[in-house]
Amino acid sequence: MTPDALSSLLHRTRAHSLALAASLSDEDAQLQSMPDASPAKWHLAHTTWFFETLVLAPHLPGYRVFDERWPRLFNSYYESLGPRHARPQRGLLSRPSLAEVKAYRQHVDAALATLLPVAPPAVDALVELGCHHEQQHQELLLTDILHAFSCNPLLPAYATGAPAAVEPPDQGWLQHPGGIVDIGHAGNGFAFDNEGPRHAALLTPFEISNRLVTCGEYADFVEAGGYQEPLLWLSDGWAAVQAQGWQRPLYWLEDGRVFGLHGAQAMDAQAPVTQLSFYEACAFAEWAGARLPTEFEWEAASGLPGFAQAADRAWQWMRSSYAPYPGFKPAAGAVGEYNGKFMVGQQVLRGGSLATPLGHARPSYRNFFPPAARWQFSGVRLAR
Amino acid sequence: MTPDALSSLLHRTRAHSLALAASLSDEDAQLQSMPDASPAKWHLAHTTWFFETLVLAPHLPGYRVFDERWPRLFNSYYESLGPRHARPQRGLLSRPSLAEVKAYRQHVDAALATLLPVAPPAVDALVELGCHHEQQHQELLLTDILHAFSCNPLLPAYATGAPAAVEPPDQGWLQHPGGIVDIGHAGNGFAFDNEGPRHAALLTPFEISNRLVTCGEYADFVEAGGYQEPLLWLSDGWAAVQAQGWQRPLYWLEDGRVFGLHGAQAMDAQAPVTQLSFYEACAFAEWAGARLPTEFEWEAASGLPGFAQAADRAWQWMRSSYAPYPGFKPAAGAVGEYNGKFMVGQQVLRGGSLATPLGHARPSYRNFFPPAARWQFSGVRLAR
Amino acid sequence: MTPDALSSLLHRTRAHSLALAASLSDEDAQLQSMPDASPAKWHLAHTTWFFETLVLAPHLPGYRVFDERWPRLFNSYYESLGPRHARPQRGLLSRPSLAEVKAYRQHVDAALATLLPVAPPAVDALVELGCHHEQQHQELLLTDILHAFSCNPLLPAYATGAPAAVEPPDQGWLQHPGGIVDIGHAGNGFAFDNEGPRHAALLTPFEISNRLVTCGEYADFVEAGGYQEPLLWLSDGWAAVQAQGWQRPLYWLEDGRVFGLHGAQAMDAQAPVTQLSFYEACAFAEWAGARLPTEFEWEAASGLPGFAQAADRAWQWMRSSYAPYPGFKPAAGAVGEYNGKFMVGQQVLRGGSLATPLGHARPSYRNFFPPAARWQFSGVRLAR
Amino acid sequence: MTPDALSSLLHRTRAHSLALAASLSDEDAQLQSMPDASPAKWHLAHTTWFFETLVLAPHLPGYRVFDERWPRLFNSYYESLGPRHARPQRGLLSRPSLAEVKAYRQHVDAALATLLPVAPPAVDALVELGCHHEQQHQELLLTDILHAFSCNPLLPAYATGAPAAVEPPDQGWLQHPGGIVDIGHAGNGFAFDNEGPRHAALLTPFEISNRLVTCGEYADFVEAGGYQEPLLWLSDGWAAVQAQGWQRPLYWLEDGRVFGLHGAQAMDAQAPVTQLSFYEACAFAEWAGARLPTEFEWEAASGLPGFAQAADRAWQWMRSSYAPYPGFKPAAGAVGEYNGKFMVGQQVLRGGSLATPLGHARPSYRNFFPPAARWQFSGVRLAR
Repeated sequence: MTPDALSSLLHRTRAHSLALAASLSDEDAQLQSMPDASPAKWHLAHTTWFFETLVLAPHLPGYRVFDERWPRLFNSYYESLGPRHARPQRGLLSRPSLAEVKAYRQHVDAALATLLPVAPPAVDALVELGCHHEQQHQELLLTDILHAFSCNPLLPAYATGAPAAVEPPDQGWLQHPGGIVDIGHAGNGFAFDNEGPRHAALLTPFEISNRLVTCGEYADFVEAGGYQEPLLWLSDGWAAVQAQGWQRPLYWLEDGRVFGLHGAQAMDAQAPVTQLSFYEACAFAEWAGARLPTEFEWEAASGLPGFAQAADRAWQWMRSSYAPYPGFKPAAGAVGEYNGKFMVGQQVLRGGSLATPLGHARPSYRNFFPPAARWQFSGVRLAR
Repeated sequence: MTPDALSSLLHRTRAHSLALAASLSDEDAQLQSMPDASPAKWHLAHTTWFFETLVLAPHLPGYRVFDERWPRLFNSYYESLGPRHARPQRGLLSRPSLAEVKAYRQHVDAALATLLPVAPPAVDALVELGCHHEQQHQELLLTDILHAFSCNPLLPAYATGAPAAVEPPDQGWLQHPGGIVDIGHAGNGFAFDNEGPRHAALLTPFEISNRLVTCGEYADFVEAGGYQEPLLWLSDGWAAVQAQGWQRPLYWLEDGRVFGLHGAQAMDAQAPVTQLSFYEACAFAEWAGARLPTEFEWEAASGLPGFAQAADRAWQWMRSSYAPYPGFKPAAGAVGEYNGKFMVGQQVLRGGSLATPLGHARPSYRNFFPPAARWQFSGVRLAR
Repeated sequence: MTPDALSSLLHRTRAHSLALAASLSDEDAQLQSMPDASPAKWHLAHTTWFFETLVLAPHLPGYRVFDERWPRLFNSYYESLGPRHARPQRGLLSRPSLAEVKAYRQHVDAALATLLPVAPPAVDALVELGCHHEQQHQELLLTDILHAFSCNPLLPAYATGAPAAVEPPDQGWLQHPGGIVDIGHAGNGFAFDNEGPRHAALLTPFEISNRLVTCGEYADFVEAGGYQEPLLWLSDGWAAVQAQGWQRPLYWLEDGRVFGLHGAQAMDAQAPVTQLSFYEACAFAEWAGARLPTEFEWEAASGLPGFAQAADRAWQWMRSSYAPYPGFKPAAGAVGEYNGKFMVGQQVLRGGSLATPLGHARPSYRNFFPPAARWQFSGVRLAR
Repeated sequence: MTPDALSSLLHRTRAHSLALAASLSDEDAQLQSMPDASPAKWHLAHTTWFFETLVLAPHLPGYRVFDERWPRLFNSYYESLGPRHARPQRGLLSRPSLAEVKAYRQHVDAALATLLPVAPPAVDALVELGCHHEQQHQELLLTDILHAFSCNPLLPAYATGAPAAVEPPDQGWLQHPGGIVDIGHAGNGFAFDNEGPRHAALLTPFEISNRLVTCGEYADFVEAGGYQEPLLWLSDGWAAVQAQGWQRPLYWLEDGRVFGLHGAQAMDAQAPVTQLSFYEACAFAEWAGARLPTEFEWEAASGLPGFAQAADRAWQWMRSSYAPYPGFKPAAGAVGEYNGKFMVGQQVLRGGSLATPLGHARPSYRNFFPPAARWQFSGVRLAR
């Protein structure tokens, strides 16, 4: 990446985070509705802490930490970077204020502007990682505030206006002949460590849907009693249905509307169904006489002609758990904690969503969440 | 109460709530650090809802409810007044904003100003109840924000400056001869229903301390291993010590300072110890070779000469559970839910604290909390 | 107590425990259906441990502890007597076997027979305490095995045959004039420390029912929607109703039968309702336009002519929490842990039940359980 | 399988279950020490219910169900076969007694003996499945009783005598060249549905250890502070270490001994370490500079010369989650619930253990448990 391109990426990324938070009040930005979600203010501060701790403190001579009490507040999960404020208590940090966090961002942005022109390549790589890291948190900022708003009986809308109508292609099956395919990131562009090493994999021939499952199709499953029929569900999924009282997707309201970034809206039967757990995705696929694709199938098929809604609507749950590729080694140092230590108990999602920052995702991109997670823009692409 | 006096009480009370919240940011006012505590914003709104629902809606012709979606947000526990937002989720209400809640307060204050000059006595009584209700929430606003701040590693100070030094009298024992005493509220002034009916009770002779237990005295108990000796504790208390890892009072920091409204401060050995649970109060008394007084003893002794620190420093845990007086009947209607339904599983506290609004408490006043509650200004007065 | 009387009491008590367990298989005797209950085998062993530890070890020269590994298994809650096996895991002790526990009993009985003829009065008092202690466990053995059997879909019957029909007197109100009454144990017979010191109390005039509430009366409450009406319940009670899904008394089956010592039987509308929690007792009383008596009222009224079903059918929940009498001091040593440390969070029950060993209860006897406890033979006597 | 071979398999399998339970008392056989474990008596009954429900009831004309109330007690997790007794309450079934369960076994064995000579091949296949099902429960019977005994401070020994000393080969690395390998069950013998369809997979070259990790090697990890170093652990694993207070393997006692089927014994440094969770296996591998093999690697390498301790000492945790093979379809009917619905949230184990019945395992065999499970004979074979 050229110095200009990196500088531009940094500026755009940092500005985009603020733009996403612009419509939030100080109170909104502090909301934490569950331990798995974080306040918007925390996302703004944590992504800044990442640059301060991994880039500025070790690499900019004379850099002054903005507030030495803050790193413990905004370290997420890096054991090698010291003690951390308990995750479920992030919503209790009324101090520092949103305004102070914005000042923190300016302080760090200014220091990065000083460092960047003279930074060696290793530092450039860390800055680039910091940008992609921040982009990940941009999506979480949206899914987390949406979850928080969903807990308020007033159902506030994050955005004004109405969502654009979706006009998907007619459903069809794309054929893949199987055989040996190359999996994982190729080329010089940025990728996370979990996308490599690139390696060959052997696939059985399969078919994959040209588009995502729609709300209308999922509504048929709900109406057909899908949430009452244990034989459609994985055992853990059925346990979740019963323990949590699931009856429909998380943001489908009892009155038939669907809650989303534009508040409660009439259901668009053509729009991809989102906010599904892996369990719901599997049960639907079972009911539909199909299955979920593996992540290798998805990656191999994503270049097929007619493969629509790849990365702009909803992440797609894979029939693959999140595991290391052959030869995977986490990087040395703190960035080694970025991905590798989460490689158990999670399912892979591929693609990207309407909340994913433009340019963030790739065909080799591996998103991951626990199978019960329901608050992401996560949907279904069928295979068979 | 004369119309002028009532109007004055109402104005002072409503203004005082705002004054207490004046130093809080929008973010501070939204904090809910545990299910038992509520956000300051919620306290401001709930006390307003009380007037709107019990006074204005039924008694001011043509009154327009400020927002018909809000009563479910700000009803606390009145089953007879409809469904309620779940208590542990009060901190998730970024909307309505603090500014909107203040507008709600103005709307209701204006309507009360219209109603008050023409209100019949029954309505006056409800307004007076509403004022005393709001005073109770003023104390909770302080203890709740203090708890929330205690969860922030930055330990924000609610108030600037330092606490005034306390100069208690030397400890001494006041004698009470026992015999038949009258218990409960007397006279025409306001009292809660739980303070009556006034009735006679028979007391054995006893002694009661002229002042509260100090931090210095309690520190001796801690240093003597009080939190490691099960035989000093009630069984439930010892279970709490072990399950919660109690080692000292809730706001005593590891570095020897004490957290309070003025932030972390050096311990004032002369100041009454506060933020104790009933269990800790009992264990200390056992260690000190004394006991806690009963609420009847306390009420009978509170008029003795030399009875210091009665109601201005810390509520005092009683060796009395919260139960109805002989002949007690809750009022008809929603206000009947105010006190009576909590009369199990709670211990009585008598007196008042530095957080109690001036003029709120009385010798017959019965405060109550579960025996494990540690976030109030609750301390110990010994008896024997 | 004369030596002969004590010896007789000891023999009868020890034999009765075995008789109660005679119909239980080895497997039955090991059942622990919840942390609050204990296996029958454990009751047999614990009561034996009590004699071994408090009587034999300190007072019989040369006494050999039966198995030095067992005291930690069979100490219930005596902090001063060393570490204990965790209460919820008592059902995991397949070893020692029931046969070994019976051998333990014989070993201890033989040693007691050696000691008794030469024991000084202080030891006699401990033996007498041990007998009354064992009698308490005899009742628990029955209520605990009944609870365990209630968890088995086969609903085993503890006893053969059918329960005797109950023919209570017509309901009537007994008048008590109030005034100063003496409360607490009097005389030379055995009493627990919590029954004293005897002291005067002042009562307001009251009425109390001549008999217990019947199943038929309670069924009317259930049919009238008592479990659906929050305003009848204490706040903690209503929370329990909702959290636990209570719809009727614990052992009332959906098909209208009632589970008890004789298995599932047709409901006897005349029989006192039992297995009620304090919360249910209070809600019923509220619905019936009455209240529960205080323990002082009960004790004062228990001698009135016509006071039926005092101690032979069901313990009666009191509107009194379990608290020390004026001047109460626990005994020195381990027996001081017997009662005093439980004096918070519990409600008093007075009377006695069909499961109480003959001669065990007294008018001054104070039983106690948490307000949510539902597995005892606990019922309601109304007052007003 | 010939009729004679099937008959022999059935007889041996049924007899072996009884033999395994022969040393257990009625009380032992009822122990359930955690929801994941079942009583030995329940295993004896459930395996019998399997034959009764899937073989006899549908295929033996005139078969009389032993007790029509029992199927709900002994159905494990088959949603399609009706309601079930709650799993965590299996230990509360003192009735039916162990003797009655043995009579149940005889009743079913006799009926199977009647059916077998005239059974069509489809029924033969079900009988064979029932035998392999019962063998799985034979291993669980051992691991479950061992866990229960570990909860008894007396640490009872399941078996007399001492374990045989283990003399493993020196550790060495076996080379595998990678390439396309065939995975899954081949041939006509019995296999579970999850072992197919057989399919090709592509492997990168790798090395795998010739033997399992020993107790001595694992003790080095413990002494080196492995349980205190978060960077060695998967994130979920470290959370388990902290939440559960893990400090060493589950059955390693504080005094240095190891608990096992022969009770507490001196540690055999040469014996394979067992009772490890997947998390511990991964942390050890990380510390040792190696990794766990995938299940495809294991299966491909299991035929290499020198591959020792394949299936006779401990199951080996795989770096593979439990997922369907390409083209996997669960069988129609109730047996379809056998494996497929558990294919999420579990890790595969390969090999077999000292508790696995002889002849039960195969190289294609896929065992599976949640990553936190610690009570199986589960150990580690390293790869790199």
